[in-house]
Amino acid sequence: MVPHLVPRWPVCLFRWRAACTLGACVPQSAWARASRTPGPGSPRGAVGTSPLVRRGGSSSSSRAPEVMLTRERYPVQRLPFSVVSEEDLAAFERITPGRVVTDPEELEASNVDWLRTVRGCSKVLLKPQTTEEVSHILRYCHERNLAVNPQGGNTGMVGGSVPVFDEIILSTALMNQVISFHGVSGILVCQAGCILEELSRYVEERDFIMPLDLGAKGSCHIGGNVATNAGGLRFLRYGSLHGTVLGLEVVLADGTVLNCLTSLRKDNTGYDLKQLFIGSEGTLGVITAVSILCPPKPRAVNVAFLGCPGFAEVLQTFSTCKGMLGEILSAFEFMDAECMQLVGHHLGLVSPVQESPFYVLIETSGSRAGHDAEKLSSFLEHVLDFGLVTDGTLATDQRRVKMLWALRERITEALSRDGCVYKYDISLPVERLYDLVSDLRARLGPQAKHVVGYGHLGDGNLHLNVTAEAFSASLLGALEPYVYEWTAGQQGSVSAEHGLGFKKKDVLSYSKPPAALQLMQQLKALLDPKGILNPYKTLPARA
Amino acid sequence: MVPHLVPRWPVCLFRWRAACTLGACVPQSAWARASRTPGPGSPRGAVGTSPLVRRGGSSSSSRAPEVMLTRERYPVQRLPFSVVSEEDLAAFERITPGRVVTDPEELEASNVDWLRTVRGCSKVLLKPQTTEEVSHILRYCHERNLAVNPQGGNTGMVGGSVPVFDEIILSTALMNQVISFHGVSGILVCQAGCILEELSRYVEERDFIMPLDLGAKGSCHIGGNVATNAGGLRFLRYGSLHGTVLGLEVVLADGTVLNCLTSLRKDNTGYDLKQLFIGSEGTLGVITAVSILCPPKPRAVNVAFLGCPGFAEVLQTFSTCKGMLGEILSAFEFMDAECMQLVGHHLGLVSPVQESPFYVLIETSGSRAGHDAEKLSSFLEHVLDFGLVTDGTLATDQRRVKMLWALRERITEALSRDGCVYKYDISLPVERLYDLVSDLRARLGPQAKHVVGYGHLGDGNLHLNVTAEAFSASLLGALEPYVYEWTAGQQGSVSAEHGLGFKKKDVLSYSKPPAALQLMQQLKALLDPKGILNPYKTLPARA
Repeated sequence: MVPHLVPRWPVCLFRWRAACTLGACVPQSAWARASRTPGPGSPRGAVGTSPLVRRGGSSSSSRAPEVMLTRERYPVQRLPFSVVSEEDLAAFERITPGRVVTDPEELEASNVDWLRTVRGCSKVLLKPQTTEEVSHILRYCHERNLAVNPQGGNTGMVGGSVPVFDEIILSTALMNQVISFHGVSGILVCQAGCILEELSRYVEERDFIMPLDLGAKGSCHIGGNVATNAGGLRFLRYGSLHGTVLGLEVVLADGTVLNCLTSLRKDNTGYDLKQLFIGSEGTLGVITAVSILCPPKPRAVNVAFLGCPGFAEVLQTFSTCKGMLGEILSAFEFMDAECMQLVGHHLGLVSPVQESPFYVLIETSGSRAGHDAEKLSSFLEHVLDFGLVTDGTLATDQRRVKMLWALRERITEALSRDGCVYKYDISLPVERLYDLVSDLRARLGPQAKHVVGYGHLGDGNLHLNVTAEAFSASLLGALEPYVYEWTAGQQGSVSAEHGLGFKKKDVLSYSKPPAALQLMQQLKALLDPKGILNPYKTLPARA
Repeated sequence: MVPHLVPRWPVCLFRWRAACTLGACVPQSAWARASRTPGPGSPRGAVGTSPLVRRGGSSSSSRAPEVMLTRERYPVQRLPFSVVSEEDLAAFERITPGRVVTDPEELEASNVDWLRTVRGCSKVLLKPQTTEEVSHILRYCHERNLAVNPQGGNTGMVGGSVPVFDEIILSTALMNQVISFHGVSGILVCQAGCILEELSRYVEERDFIMPLDLGAKGSCHIGGNVATNAGGLRFLRYGSLHGTVLGLEVVLADGTVLNCLTSLRKDNTGYDLKQLFIGSEGTLGVITAVSILCPPKPRAVNVAFLGCPGFAEVLQTFSTCKGMLGEILSAFEFMDAECMQLVGHHLGLVSPVQESPFYVLIETSGSRAGHDAEKLSSFLEHVLDFGLVTDGTLATDQRRVKMLWALRERITEALSRDGCVYKYDISLPVERLYDLVSDLRARLGPQAKHVVGYGHLGDGNLHLNVTAEAFSASLLGALEPYVYEWTAGQQGSVSAEHGLGFKKKDVLSYSKPPAALQLMQQLKALLDPKGILNPYKTLPARA
């Protein structure tokens, strides 16, 4: 394909290495967007090694060591909610007949987060199928002062989707129906429990795509995506869910159904209430249905995987890219050499480009293949001529595109196999993005096994990960609050896309001033005066 | 240009008429984005004929007949706010020395909306320069229970930007400084009083564009744009301000400064508070600074102006356009034949395409002129071959592009010269968009002089306008609530992009359920417990 795409590309500089060698050492099944349930960890996301399972899928407790209870690991006090009684269970059985789960084995997967770092001890999980059932459940829980933990695909990174104590788990798993799809406008309306990958398939059959894509797509629910304001791989092109979500149906803490499920691109009648719930992590209401704008499916997708000699060149490549690829640019991801070493070492993935300190993955999506190829060719010639890129490879067919994407998407998995991982998800001004990684490497020295940086460079979003053989309090002390203070010093965000959930709620003040924190508390008190919705999450405990 | 752009275009079908003839009968100065201060009108936007002036600019009361006071025209009761005293004026003089306006002549332009349909009787206008001054003013007014009317460029369509009674006018006119611009990310941070056109010029010099553009750009303030969630001409491509605004600084009713002025593309630390203020029309807080993401400036812009034989063909042209122009499509506007008759008759603009029942204006913006021209050429061939389009013209140079845009942008002005205008701004499912116009034409018969439909078809946004020689209560009775009920029957929005302000606040319930209305009232009570911010606007009066 390359000679056609980049006819004047000098072969000596830009070597095509068959993409099929990428996964030579990995079983075919592992090429799927699989991930792992890590072993027991330490506070703040330390994880271990364990077999591959579907992210967010259930794991048998007999195969993995038990995860320590959150209430034992963290200094957190149960709030004075009621305890679920037999009468309550009978009431739930009347609301959701045959869909009240109390079997401890079955509950286990919903009590533990997929990173296996936090664990609640809920005794009951409810599986409503309709908005009315959710409304009945919440009205009942509100009256009885029972705490509720809304749960989608349980794929979150910050412990937001599992109970901390014995909160009732309200799963959207059976709310998985498409309500409507409009073939001209591309507006999809569906229940909150639809799995992202299934929605993607549904709209792709109709020549559209979902405006978001993420590694957890095989398990995550669209309602959870909206509740956590998921970012992901298409953010650079299609923007935030605050722009693409057109309407929501939400059940409030007292059971009131708030129907803002409009499927209009424009609606300026009063305050845009749905925005309140996007990114509120289930603490202000339970999202039961979503209306979302899907972009037309691109007719051509190209991926270039390039090696850059330094981070300055990564930045210049990005600027050049924005100018020369313009409207067809759909992703600009970067990763450092240590990331590539880890995916090679732990997963056997062979990068077609090697011996560079930095790598970038550029994706284009457009409506005319020939035009896109010409733009990409001009761009690649330019970056090579100016020494911004020293080596690279291109892919256009779907299989090769997926293989190149795997080098980026499976870094998380490779890290988890490297030992205990300390994970940070930071927004920074793009020119300072890598300084934090370099600073930390110098600061930690041999205490860390690896300090790696990768992420959505186009969005100013760094995934900073530090690995060590085992959990170490002194390493944690060297990392925190240093990382947060460093980020705050650059007016960055201490949680770019993962949210706060349970594990990051106490670092909120590094990115938000006291007035904002106070208004958040007031909104929580207004919408959920008893605090029954996803307690212990998002907002720091009141003094 | 055409032979180069569409080499195989059959000359007999697609006749190029020199775009310079478009404005032959109109003075050169009128080609600017000028608008008018209409004459005295009747309730709900009836307007008359008057000389062209810059929209939102001050008008001498000696030249135009006086506008009736809102309190005399509408059944509205003054709420029990304090009345501004001499002590208050002295206090304001200490906060904003030399910038306290009490001269009645000078106040006139700020008491009357640009459509000249509503008029307050404020006795004082304040011109703060800094956020601290705004904070001091609001803290003082909150303590004294004085009502405040925040005002930007005063270019709104629904009476939201002028006082209803004697509210203090808080103008952002002197808060017009750019705070920062980031040349890689395109993130602009500026004070709320910056004029949109000046910001456009500023970022265009740096190879970016503002993500929004509207007819009032020469006068409107970015803070007002955000406060009203302005839509406009670039919405189809760059989406809503809920997606492109990255941060806001807002002063709350009690003077608290809420600094959420982040300039990061991603930030998931807690609730996205800024969203509350986007589209809240100054009723929840006063926006003092804005951080906004600017897209790269396109290197090529093309405009096609086409005639379609029916509305079904307009819709098919739109679908074809989305598929074939894909990522370069930046506007898809439509207008009916009566619109073109009006711009011809009242403004002397000659359309290069005539004798079609419908017209569409398609704009493309891309990074490579040759590619864009090829895409456009293929598209035009296709729509001609299939009979979706019967005639058309193309423009690529800036002057001609502006001339074609004037045919669309100056419809409002032509309407105002046609007599008394009844204006509606509706969102509907795109396939029903024109049915409302046809239905109304049949319903109104000779009562109406003209019933016209035009607007942002790509966004499902219809501007429906009805003209008559003079205000008529029976015509109004035939229009309302019929138009609102018709819209509600299609789950449409009774205010797509103009907001509710003073004039549309009572129709909110056609598009929002009681639970939403209740939550809006609760949010207002939380953020502005004394109700001093822009009272009588957005929310219906409590029973």
